[in-house]
Amino acid sequence: MPQRFKLTIAYDGTAYSGWQIQPAHRTVQGEMEKAVQALCQHSARVESSGRTDSGVHARGQVAHVDIEAALRPDQVLRGLNALLNDDIRVMKVKPVASSFHARYSATGKEYRYQIWNDRVLDPVHRLYCAWVRERLDVEEMVRAAQILQGYHDFAAFTANPNREIDGTARTVSRLHVTRRGRLVVIRVEGDGFLYKMVRSLAGHLIRVGRGEVDAQATREILASKVRTARVPTAPANGLYLWKVYYGKRPAT
Amino acid sequence: MPQRFKLTIAYDGTAYSGWQIQPAHRTVQGEMEKAVQALCQHSARVESSGRTDSGVHARGQVAHVDIEAALRPDQVLRGLNALLNDDIRVMKVKPVASSFHARYSATGKEYRYQIWNDRVLDPVHRLYCAWVRERLDVEEMVRAAQILQGYHDFAAFTANPNREIDGTARTVSRLHVTRRGRLVVIRVEGDGFLYKMVRSLAGHLIRVGRGEVDAQATREILASKVRTARVPTAPANGLYLWKVYYGKRPAT
Repeated sequence: MPQRFKLTIAYDGTAYSGWQIQPAHRTVQGEMEKAVQALCQHSARVESSGRTDSGVHARGQVAHVDIEAALRPDQVLRGLNALLNDDIRVMKVKPVASSFHARYSATGKEYRYQIWNDRVLDPVHRLYCAWVRERLDVEEMVRAAQILQGYHDFAAFTANPNREIDGTARTVSRLHVTRRGRLVVIRVEGDGFLYKMVRSLAGHLIRVGRGEVDAQATREILASKVRTARVPTAPANGLYLWKVYYGKRPAT
Repeated sequence: MPQRFKLTIAYDGTAYSGWQIQPAHRTVQGEMEKAVQALCQHSARVESSGRTDSGVHARGQVAHVDIEAALRPDQVLRGLNALLNDDIRVMKVKPVASSFHARYSATGKEYRYQIWNDRVLDPVHRLYCAWVRERLDVEEMVRAAQILQGYHDFAAFTANPNREIDGTARTVSRLHVTRRGRLVVIRVEGDGFLYKMVRSLAGHLIRVGRGEVDAQATREILASKVRTARVPTAPANGLYLWKVYYGKRPAT
């Protein structure tokens, strides 16, 4: 019987065409499956909690894999990290029951969106932050974020509402905007996210912060349930899949 | 009469063979001089406060340049940044008297050395931190740092004592070691630094933090005035030239 392992994976998405395996593209899943094959001498699917887009980073992506070789968790961790490029790291390995599924067992996710808010973009942050030159009005962003929190139809905040098979209503349990010096961080937590939803929320909040649109306009945009050019998609490199929750999530 | 400008420059040193211009190598000075030439239609030396080694980063390198074109400071800033790769950024531009010299007018410098101290190196920090797996004993590092603070002959902490024309005694006015979660940061400030001195201080402090050598042994090593294999040079990618001081430095 193979052993199922839960893997917590961090990656710098800069060099990858996202998570999902694709022929002729470098993807995180593709690299993970190559490393598993080399370590275990058999092929195995590495199934994650969900895709991340091209250029998006992860601090705590979670995946599962079934391994037939008799390996301890620390051997899996060190073995995979020895085989992987250093822009992908397996941070934790835990044996789990075969009923655990990285995607279907997930009960929630946290994303972070980082914005470098200064006249010039600091070079060492350029790959890991979006850049906004004009001073963002974080208080106004917080007001818009409060409107977006809760259970809503987020059709106006996804790149393609028709793509979703289980509708476009989701619960955003937390949407916080904070400034730490020149860095503005958006933290968003919820039970599930539509295609490009976090980057759409970030794109809208940035417009609000720039004063291009009023926080109160968020109500109309939500109610319209139609995606228009009023909601831009913020750049991929500011986005991190921060944490995936299983079982009970912490109270928020 | 040309106008002299003081430039504050940040760079990600990953892709560069250090500051100093060299034939057949990509260097920060080389890129800066190319950009000045393209902007001003004349060649000009971009003279910095001092070299940084290959792979070393800067948050606040300072340089000066004499420009004959009639340009305002903000035009110089935007013009150079438009021409430079985004891993080099001019953060500030200020007109200065022709008596200002980035190197000779400098009265002190601050460097930071960053260490990622965890079992696995987080991919988004890999280019900007050295990595130490074993838990560092920061308290012991602080004790060693306190011994190194002050006016000493640092011959044991430079890669090549014979290279220095003005002797090997320097004042380290501040040497602080702090932990913020998994990040250990060494801050060092002084009136001048020998070749690879900061990386040698960091290399020694890391050995102390690992328990390979006692903090008290720092006294003997200093007193020996001889560089031996006991003092390793820590990797370049953890090092940042943080700030260059001119005129009176803040009290420490």
